[in-house]
Amino acid sequence: MTVASLETLALSDIRRNQILQAAGQCFARSGFHGASMQQICAEAKMSPGAVYRYFPSKEAIIEAIAEEKRLEAGACVAGLLGEGPIVERMTSVAMEYIGASRDPEGQLMVEICSESLRNTAVGRRFAELENGVRTLFREALVKARQDGEIGCDVDIEAVLTMIFGMGDGLMMRLQIEREVDVQSLRPYVRRVFHALLKGEPA
Amino acid sequence: MTVASLETLALSDIRRNQILQAAGQCFARSGFHGASMQQICAEAKMSPGAVYRYFPSKEAIIEAIAEEKRLEAGACVAGLLGEGPIVERMTSVAMEYIGASRDPEGQLMVEICSESLRNTAVGRRFAELENGVRTLFREALVKARQDGEIGCDVDIEAVLTMIFGMGDGLMMRLQIEREVDVQSLRPYVRRVFHALLKGEPA
Repeated sequence: MTVASLETLALSDIRRNQILQAAGQCFARSGFHGASMQQICAEAKMSPGAVYRYFPSKEAIIEAIAEEKRLEAGACVAGLLGEGPIVERMTSVAMEYIGASRDPEGQLMVEICSESLRNTAVGRRFAELENGVRTLFREALVKARQDGEIGCDVDIEAVLTMIFGMGDGLMMRLQIEREVDVQSLRPYVRRVFHALLKGEPA
Repeated sequence: MTVASLETLALSDIRRNQILQAAGQCFARSGFHGASMQQICAEAKMSPGAVYRYFPSKEAIIEAIAEEKRLEAGACVAGLLGEGPIVERMTSVAMEYIGASRDPEGQLMVEICSESLRNTAVGRRFAELENGVRTLFREALVKARQDGEIGCDVDIEAVLTMIFGMGDGLMMRLQIEREVDVQSLRPYVRRVFHALLKGEPA
C-alpha cells in the first residue's frame, strides 16, 4: 500500500466519522424519522455529493450507527462473562450502561431506546441488537443458576424483562434528570439485582 | 336547564370524546409532533369546522388528554394513601400502572412516557403531571419512614428515580413484549420495592 492510499484511507475514515457524528446529532434532535439527509449534510458541513459517496441513504447511516452500537454493547456486556459474583458483574454492566446517559451522545441513546420499543424498521433493527445483549444476559443467568448463585425458582425471563425495563427507563430518565448523581444509584441497582436473583418469596 | 340544552350537553360530551379518542389513536401512531389536525379530523370522521368548535388547536387536544391522564393518575395513586404495608401498596399501584400497557391506548402511554422524557413543550407538560405523582410517592415514603417502615439511611430521591425509571421502562417494554404475562412480574416488582426500601447495604 502506497503512502498516498494510506492517506486516502485515513481521510475516508475521518469523513465517515464526521458524517456519523453529525447524523447522531441530527437524530438526537429530530428523531430517526424527523431528521433529513439535507440536515445531516448541513450539520456535517459537507455537500450532499460528498456525503452520498460514503452513505447512499439515511438508512445506510442508521445501519452504520447500529453497527457501532453493537460493538459498544459487546464491549459493555463483556464484563458479564468475567469473574466474581453474578450480582456484582451485573451491577457493573448496568452502571456502565446507564452512565452513558451522561455522554455527549446520551440523547441519541434515548432516541435509540424509544425507537427500539416501536414497531418500525429502525425500531426492529435496534431491538435485534438488544436481543443479542439479552441473549448474553440470559446465558450468564443460566450459568449462575447452574453454579448455585441464584434461586432455582427464579423465572429468568421475568427477571430479564425487569432488568431491561429498568435499564431503558433509567437511561432515559437520567438523561433528563441531570441533577441526579448516577453513581448514587449504584447501591440501589445492586440491591435490585440481589432481590431479583435471590429467589425467595418477597 | 331545558331538555334541549341537556341533550346538547350530552351530544357535546360525545363529540368531545370522539375527538379525543381519534386524536389518541393518531398520536399513538404518529407521535404528538407527527400527527396533524387533518389526520385527527379524518380519524374522528368529523369536518375540521366541527372539530375546531371543540378544540381550537392540536395543543388544546393534547392539553385535554393531559387533563384526562392527570385524573387517571390521581385515581391510580390513591391506593398509595390506603392501609397496609408500604411495599404492598406500592406494588399494587405499580401493577395497575404497568397493566395499562395492555390497554387499547397502551401505545399512547408509550408516546406519553417517551415524550415526557424530552425537553419539548408537550414533554414538559407530561413531565409536570408526573411530578405530581412523584410528589405523592415522596410523601408516602416520608410517612413510611416516620412510621419505621423503611430504613432511615434510604435515599428517598434515589429510590424515586429507580421506581419511576422502572415504571416507564416496563410500561414501554410490555407494550412491545406482548407475550409476557404482566401478572407474572408481580412477585419481582414486590421484591424490588422491598429491596429498595429495606435500607441495609446490599
